[in-house]
Amino acid sequence: MKLPATTVARLSKYRRMLGSFNYENTYIFSHNLAKLLNLTPEQVRRDLMLIGLTGNHRKGYNIKELIELIGKTIDSEMGHNVAIVGMGNLGVAITAFIRRAKTNLNIVAAFDIDSEKIGRKVEDVTCYHVNDITDIVKNLNISIAVLTVPPGEAIDVATLLINSGIKGILNFTSVHIDVPSHVYLKDSNIITSLEEIGFFIKEWDKK
Amino acid sequence: MKLPATTVARLSKYRRMLGSFNYENTYIFSHNLAKLLNLTPEQVRRDLMLIGLTGNHRKGYNIKELIELIGKTIDSEMGHNVAIVGMGNLGVAITAFIRRAKTNLNIVAAFDIDSEKIGRKVEDVTCYHVNDITDIVKNLNISIAVLTVPPGEAIDVATLLINSGIKGILNFTSVHIDVPSHVYLKDSNIITSLEEIGFFIKEWDKK
Repeated sequence: MKLPATTVARLSKYRRMLGSFNYENTYIFSHNLAKLLNLTPEQVRRDLMLIGLTGNHRKGYNIKELIELIGKTIDSEMGHNVAIVGMGNLGVAITAFIRRAKTNLNIVAAFDIDSEKIGRKVEDVTCYHVNDITDIVKNLNISIAVLTVPPGEAIDVATLLINSGIKGILNFTSVHIDVPSHVYLKDSNIITSLEEIGFFIKEWDKK
Repeated sequence: MKLPATTVARLSKYRRMLGSFNYENTYIFSHNLAKLLNLTPEQVRRDLMLIGLTGNHRKGYNIKELIELIGKTIDSEMGHNVAIVGMGNLGVAITAFIRRAKTNLNIVAAFDIDSEKIGRKVEDVTCYHVNDITDIVKNLNISIAVLTVPPGEAIDVATLLINSGIKGILNFTSVHIDVPSHVYLKDSNIITSLEEIGFFIKEWDKK
């Protein structure tokens, strides 16, 4: 199914928002869902139509059906196997964060270069040496890597991951990573986000 | 200056990328900068024209000038005062991450509810009780909050921050936060990002 990245991100948000309700036999109108997420009803209806769902005019969308269909659309049946690469503060915190959220993402490995960590479990995930990335990615069928290494290591480690056959990278470093067209890269750049916020509130202050 | 959020994010990236060079008296062509960041030269030229910079046809852009002008455009003169709200693993890790990056963002306070942390310094930042947000935000002139509290606390704490006069929020929780139009919200949703990556690599696998 061809869907824009922005639609996929919104579907993920619809599910998360509606999942917090007690939704047995409950319906929701597009305008209510839109209001909860600061979107327009048209946007919500368009997204849901893209995955083949149309609401009932009088009752709206069946929430259970909606959540299941979003799951069928965006989740992989077996779930994706994920590795956290770089078990400093940020890597450990993100591991805990993902494990606590209910998703079908399986964190199956962590990587670091610190011999104190290698072979141990951190947040219930075994930590391997970065040198073993190629073997472990293949053996454990890891498809997504979360990159939380120091900036100086980012390019080398990303290259290693890509050569090992990783398919997706969530990049928390401030370093620009070049990926081939068969690898999906998503940047989560904390500094860029803060600088963007900073610019807009500076502009508002001028008014 | 009116700039789209995407332009501001790219300007922040140009600066970060070029800042890593030894750039005294060095010039760069738009097509080189574009290539470093996987953009088109037209995009780079358009962004830089928006902040009033045109390159020299034979030499390109003076890197020092470019970095300074981006700073003048997106940075606030005094820097922004930032608070980290929620000093769990993720909050502590993000505090360390921001402090290590060279920016003009000043982390001046942290907030939590854990009495073990209140009054102590974590990563060199004093931790206050969430109940004191209103006073501290005003006294320390905090304009940006990084929200790293548990999901169940997100709405209440965000409301407290907004009522205290915060101007920007970087939201790391998976919870949707409603903000009034004078507050700039940026979501950094780890789960949504991973689900987006998961969807695209699942689609690629089908081919």
